[in-house]
Amino acid sequence: MKLPQFSDIISASEVLKGFAHRTPVLTSRMIDDIFSCNLYFKCENFQRAGAFKFRGAFNSVSNLDDQSAAKGVATHSSGNFAQALALAAKMRNIPAYIVMPETAPKAKVNAVKGYGANITFCKPTLEARESTLDNVVAETGAVFLHPYDNFHVIAGQGTSAFELLTDFPDIDTIIAPVGGGGLISGTATAAKAMRHDINVLAGEPQGADDAYRSFTTGEFVASVNPNTIADGLLTSLGKLTFPIIREKVDSVITVPDEITIEIMKLIFERMKLVIEPSSAVAVAAIYSQKEALKDRKIGIIISGGNLDLDNLPWQNNIVK
Amino acid sequence: MKLPQFSDIISASEVLKGFAHRTPVLTSRMIDDIFSCNLYFKCENFQRAGAFKFRGAFNSVSNLDDQSAAKGVATHSSGNFAQALALAAKMRNIPAYIVMPETAPKAKVNAVKGYGANITFCKPTLEARESTLDNVVAETGAVFLHPYDNFHVIAGQGTSAFELLTDFPDIDTIIAPVGGGGLISGTATAAKAMRHDINVLAGEPQGADDAYRSFTTGEFVASVNPNTIADGLLTSLGKLTFPIIREKVDSVITVPDEITIEIMKLIFERMKLVIEPSSAVAVAAIYSQKEALKDRKIGIIISGGNLDLDNLPWQNNIVK
Repeated sequence: MKLPQFSDIISASEVLKGFAHRTPVLTSRMIDDIFSCNLYFKCENFQRAGAFKFRGAFNSVSNLDDQSAAKGVATHSSGNFAQALALAAKMRNIPAYIVMPETAPKAKVNAVKGYGANITFCKPTLEARESTLDNVVAETGAVFLHPYDNFHVIAGQGTSAFELLTDFPDIDTIIAPVGGGGLISGTATAAKAMRHDINVLAGEPQGADDAYRSFTTGEFVASVNPNTIADGLLTSLGKLTFPIIREKVDSVITVPDEITIEIMKLIFERMKLVIEPSSAVAVAAIYSQKEALKDRKIGIIISGGNLDLDNLPWQNNIVK
Repeated sequence: MKLPQFSDIISASEVLKGFAHRTPVLTSRMIDDIFSCNLYFKCENFQRAGAFKFRGAFNSVSNLDDQSAAKGVATHSSGNFAQALALAAKMRNIPAYIVMPETAPKAKVNAVKGYGANITFCKPTLEARESTLDNVVAETGAVFLHPYDNFHVIAGQGTSAFELLTDFPDIDTIIAPVGGGGLISGTATAAKAMRHDINVLAGEPQGADDAYRSFTTGEFVASVNPNTIADGLLTSLGKLTFPIIREKVDSVITVPDEITIEIMKLIFERMKLVIEPSSAVAVAAIYSQKEALKDRKIGIIISGGNLDLDNLPWQNNIVK
């Protein structure tokens, strides 16, 4: 099985130039004091469509030849990849077909529609998603692009870490959240190539710890009935992402949602950044290990900032 | 009465170098589409202590000679200036005495305490504030620094616009919110000196429109019983700020809170920025005039990002 190499990430970075944002890296003295280390926040919440997903979506759409691309692209996603792929397809002027569960939040549906994509709704089960997608692909002739277990998607996601470590070559530790594993796979591939002794960490919710269990046992464990506020981290690892993670990630750190919520609010309050729960998982993972990570220079991929602002997670956890 | 000149702002900018953040300027294609113009967000929410106030506080503390500074500084404020002055005093290693109303939110009290300031509580009336402050100054010998009607405070606040117009010299319109008028006075002084034909606007809540009425009638109108969610914009203009505004501001735009709330949520959602209601007032003022301002290049001073994240204003205005 062909896995993306660092050269593929460099190529993706060329493809993205002028189309994706080179997102800023923010730091905060106050947060560094609280964490007892130096944190570099690579802000993919400022990326187009509000998340790192645009990098992989745009790279994979760009790598299609004209003939394959002509009939459009298709995927199933209720989240950030749907928006990202819709935007990337619009930029190439080809159709995008998105299969979304009928339970998807209206805001996300509207965002996908806003980019001009065609939406097909299905029952909120994996089987329904896959069979509906098969039908859509059969009818339209569109190319299926997997949200994370795709060579060019992973290479695209790695460009964020590539930019971060280019700007801050002294970073000795890097972390990203892990759901399906696209972001952490790209991050780990870039990081280990650029600095062989870098410590690569993955942050995962305790209530969806299939990557942790897969990583520690060496055997693929599927995500079954995940229970976490981090709605971007519910899925299982893929056939490409699992071997990359096993080889290049040094440690998977799981965190309970309570810490994630507390840290998420802290980042809103102190850094004035709107981040989604999945991003807070990575920051919370660092916080939970702050004794061991004291004085390190740590890069954090802030995966995105798409969330329901009418229901912030700490508001369900406080006594008013 | 000596009013600060552009040269005083340049001096303040030298004083602030290495102590205040040179805050980033953010843009958003999507927001530009919605507003039909080009917006440049000067992000003072990323400033130290979370608001532009640190610029004026640090500049005024720095301009005290050693003998005056030795006994410390004092002010009355329930908001951002209290935190800013506490931090500026801490950095000069002198005491700060802050008079706060006993009704001030705990989060703000804790932030001020966190910077090591001495807090004296008083009844939440202007009279109580002033008499309590007089007592504190008499007892301690500290220098009173007015939160906005102070030469060096105004000069410091002008450094934000100075940076913005240095980075983006093509900006043809600039706006800041107006409360007591420190920020807009500094902004207008910098802007009109740097580009004589620039359009300088002030944004004000309809429910606290004393600056609008003072500006249009030419006679000072006090702020009486203001009613707005923009808690940073409740106060009256000052003896220094009113003449500057009358001379250098081209127009005061008032906006109802409903628009401010809608725009505030839009900025959280689309730009992933935590901004306080006062900042949203300036953005909403532009939105309310978007026909007239079509295709302009508009700089907006995003004043700060300190607010109660447990009670976001749109959450009190929606039917769930």
